[in-house]
Amino acid sequence: MSFNEFVQTLPLLDHHAHYLIKGDVVNRSHRLLRVSSEADAQYPIADTANRLAWSAFQKVARQFDAATDAAYRAGTPAAEALKPMDASAYRQYNRRVFAAYNYRTLFIDTGFVPDDAILDLDQTADLTGLTVRPIYRLETHAEKFMERYDNFDEWSQHLLDAVSQVRAQGYVGCKSIAAYRVGLQVTTVREQDAHRAFDLWRAHFEDTGSSRLEDQDVINYLLGMVAPALIEQHLPLQFHVGYGDADTDLYLGNPLLLRSFLQHFCYDGLQVVLLHCYPYHREAGYLASVFPGVYFDTSLVNNLAPSSTQSVVRESLELAPYSRYLFASDASTYVEMYAVAAQTFKDALAAQLDSVGTADTAQKQAWARMVCYDNAAQLYGVPLSTTN
Amino acid sequence: MSFNEFVQTLPLLDHHAHYLIKGDVVNRSHRLLRVSSEADAQYPIADTANRLAWSAFQKVARQFDAATDAAYRAGTPAAEALKPMDASAYRQYNRRVFAAYNYRTLFIDTGFVPDDAILDLDQTADLTGLTVRPIYRLETHAEKFMERYDNFDEWSQHLLDAVSQVRAQGYVGCKSIAAYRVGLQVTTVREQDAHRAFDLWRAHFEDTGSSRLEDQDVINYLLGMVAPALIEQHLPLQFHVGYGDADTDLYLGNPLLLRSFLQHFCYDGLQVVLLHCYPYHREAGYLASVFPGVYFDTSLVNNLAPSSTQSVVRESLELAPYSRYLFASDASTYVEMYAVAAQTFKDALAAQLDSVGTADTAQKQAWARMVCYDNAAQLYGVPLSTTN
Amino acid sequence: MSFNEFVQTLPLLDHHAHYLIKGDVVNRSHRLLRVSSEADAQYPIADTANRLAWSAFQKVARQFDAATDAAYRAGTPAAEALKPMDASAYRQYNRRVFAAYNYRTLFIDTGFVPDDAILDLDQTADLTGLTVRPIYRLETHAEKFMERYDNFDEWSQHLLDAVSQVRAQGYVGCKSIAAYRVGLQVTTVREQDAHRAFDLWRAHFEDTGSSRLEDQDVINYLLGMVAPALIEQHLPLQFHVGYGDADTDLYLGNPLLLRSFLQHFCYDGLQVVLLHCYPYHREAGYLASVFPGVYFDTSLVNNLAPSSTQSVVRESLELAPYSRYLFASDASTYVEMYAVAAQTFKDALAAQLDSVGTADTAQKQAWARMVCYDNAAQLYGVPLSTTN
Repeated sequence: MSFNEFVQTLPLLDHHAHYLIKGDVVNRSHRLLRVSSEADAQYPIADTANRLAWSAFQKVARQFDAATDAAYRAGTPAAEALKPMDASAYRQYNRRVFAAYNYRTLFIDTGFVPDDAILDLDQTADLTGLTVRPIYRLETHAEKFMERYDNFDEWSQHLLDAVSQVRAQGYVGCKSIAAYRVGLQVTTVREQDAHRAFDLWRAHFEDTGSSRLEDQDVINYLLGMVAPALIEQHLPLQFHVGYGDADTDLYLGNPLLLRSFLQHFCYDGLQVVLLHCYPYHREAGYLASVFPGVYFDTSLVNNLAPSSTQSVVRESLELAPYSRYLFASDASTYVEMYAVAAQTFKDALAAQLDSVGTADTAQKQAWARMVCYDNAAQLYGVPLSTTN
Repeated sequence: MSFNEFVQTLPLLDHHAHYLIKGDVVNRSHRLLRVSSEADAQYPIADTANRLAWSAFQKVARQFDAATDAAYRAGTPAAEALKPMDASAYRQYNRRVFAAYNYRTLFIDTGFVPDDAILDLDQTADLTGLTVRPIYRLETHAEKFMERYDNFDEWSQHLLDAVSQVRAQGYVGCKSIAAYRVGLQVTTVREQDAHRAFDLWRAHFEDTGSSRLEDQDVINYLLGMVAPALIEQHLPLQFHVGYGDADTDLYLGNPLLLRSFLQHFCYDGLQVVLLHCYPYHREAGYLASVFPGVYFDTSLVNNLAPSSTQSVVRESLELAPYSRYLFASDASTYVEMYAVAAQTFKDALAAQLDSVGTADTAQKQAWARMVCYDNAAQLYGVPLSTTN
Repeated sequence: MSFNEFVQTLPLLDHHAHYLIKGDVVNRSHRLLRVSSEADAQYPIADTANRLAWSAFQKVARQFDAATDAAYRAGTPAAEALKPMDASAYRQYNRRVFAAYNYRTLFIDTGFVPDDAILDLDQTADLTGLTVRPIYRLETHAEKFMERYDNFDEWSQHLLDAVSQVRAQGYVGCKSIAAYRVGLQVTTVREQDAHRAFDLWRAHFEDTGSSRLEDQDVINYLLGMVAPALIEQHLPLQFHVGYGDADTDLYLGNPLLLRSFLQHFCYDGLQVVLLHCYPYHREAGYLASVFPGVYFDTSLVNNLAPSSTQSVVRESLELAPYSRYLFASDASTYVEMYAVAAQTFKDALAAQLDSVGTADTAQKQAWARMVCYDNAAQLYGVPLSTTN
């Protein structure tokens, strides 16, 4: 068995993914094409069709969906080939694809939901045949609590109480999208400054009805406030880092900006997970190599930029320990997106390890298993691959 | 025919280049060596001779210039081998080299001119055997109008009138060198602030005689002012990005800094072209993948850093659509610089596409043709390769 | 002889290294594991053991230390295999390893010293069999002079006098760790601002007993003050750049931030050496290609990130002249760290040059010799490899 063949057999824990949608949505081809890019609806779809992600998504569909494959062989355009399916055929198709890559467990960030025909956690488990666990998105809950409580003290107290219960409520981790809202320069905020900023935010909500949290002081205060409660519960804190849609300021998504936050909390036991990271994955690998408790993945480019995965995995593991790097897809909507992530990632990880001339095969196999499953299992407190 | 052989046959539209000079300049070897680097005259020429660009330029000369090849075989030093040529031999040599790479069309930024013995657009067309079209450099014209008009209202009105006529005058695009003067953090400037900054600039001109535009408010105002006129004329706006000479602050040449400008104008139809981009080409590919109307090239490293081209092309196309990436050389002075750009770029593009396992050959051939010619043709509004 | 075989024969001048320690330290395995990472003592050692550096260090020990190799073949864990040695065996082992990579000369930054059992310069020369020369660390001496002189004028005058004598005292270069203390945005500081900042620094010392220099104005003033004295003595100024331990702010370690300092002093003859540089080695290569007097290395990743060396060397030489790039290890403590640097660097340099199709073998051999030895010899003013 080649090293690549060995890696293909490994189970996957995807610690950062999103909801799938139903199979009977009309225009499945169009939805799949849209989801092959981080661009929004105003971006010309003809350009999205000229990206490698779209060709990779189509190839998965041809490989696993007999109808699509037949249509493709007959020269049918993609729009015709990717037909909607009834619930039973769709369930079989999804389970076939997830099983082919040995997916076992999905952690779902419940704060982002695709446009329509959403499945809930139980439906997702049924559709995919996988164990599914939820991730708690901080800013989303902070917004809901602000709608409910009109003063800073009540807001912060109730929010902190809620965050202190998330492990007990079945969540396995928390996530912050500070990078999307204000950037990653997370510094310590005095309570009085947070108080003042909260009042402005609440007043804006009362004026406009929008509860969207975009204030740097509030977000930074929130992160400092909840960190001890996360440490207490052994709950990792995920950060969106780097690559995302046009709504993120990629300049401010550099994980090196998190340094003072990491210095403040990682030595106290906070576990921080940097998500996506591209094009700052070398920087993320550096942070993982010098800060206790820093983990990272290179999700989202392994499906939306499939030709990058070989380089990205190689560059990620230049400095990082194998015990700090995690598989993830950041996929949503359709199974093809999860499949391309798994496929390019397993190939790239196998190639990277295969080229290592200083460790023996047993060590390399152990590292591959850790990256695919057990690092995340240990970090988030769920059973290891061998007991799953 | 291998995929590489196919790509070699494709015609090239070079949407970003500069003037060539005459062939009878003495010391052709020294001029060619100088132009193999972005360093200025104070940089030690012995170091420039230890760069791969110089060895690549010499190899082109040996390959296409019989006299140089003979001298080289006889062990003559480069300085002797690269002899000046009379007009007729030089014209034949130039046409032979451009034809070998199937160059068809050059867009010339008329705002930068090499030191001496400049050719004009018609002479360039005659020397090269190519179709030649001009690009309008904004800051250069803004400076000329400031010399002519001593008050902000007249300056801005006449400049805007002029920019509104550039398509009609035969220009195919505009270019900004904001990155060289103030960096790419282009934000919205209030008219009163631009007015005040203009007055200081004009006063400085009256004091010193220097009209050089280096004021951030004036440049940012200028860009915001002309953007609607460019949209109106379907004229793309090129930005110098990243790699350049010691005079550019590469730290401020990061294209991610353009984000608020892109958000402001790309959704209204402005077409923006990011030039060079290295070492920020992954960032440029990201912008092209999420903003409507953003295109980019990786010129200047394909000739001045020839060993980079394989990686740079690969990294550029991780996120970007094939419909948003363009060939360009940014070459000037001598044909060898255009040749090395074409050679390394065609080889790298062929290798990148050859490694794609999810698209068929017809698709990959179509993408190669787009990158080499038709993306630029469509963007700038000139005939497609098939009609050229 | 293959090109790789040729490069293996080349002598090495390591212009940036640190002290080794004695061989009879108990727990050699633990010390070697620690030094395979830039993480501090609070970082979990189990993660450090999951880095490729550790497997590379162990492999060197197995290859050159018969006892370790025998223990390894018998399945003994690393902790047992890497036994302490007596002085004689340790000396033989060290000399065997340094000779295997053809190390000839070490420049030691005497400002950093490993924890215990330090060797001095003469002991280091005896242990290794190499020529050893010291590098003067600016901030360390600035701190000592501040302890001695309580006013700005005396401090600056005595410090400048001392720096003006460092070549005469046998030092071959100076080093600044500004990146560790305040970042690389080195700008011109007015004397009155430096004076004020000095007084605060001195007062803080009197209050706390800590002389640690962390003030941006003092450091920037210091660099501007000593630059002319370094030019006078032809003494290169090294800067820590990029990769380092958790104590450095990697965001502020970008060498592009040095631009105004380089513009100010490089045209006057200052020679600047950028150390480590990862992940900013492309940026460092750019600076070396446009500024007179800028040199760089990619030390520390060639041993602590051994799988990176192929990419890093390739990316470093995209723009840089071969006459501006230097081998270095930045190693300390144990010979294995020096060995891995030499091994991965020689392999990577050979591969990079082997892939160059535009230069002949004689030229490529000359470039390899320059990078391994003669660039540094010429820069620091010590004999060339051919005379060593």
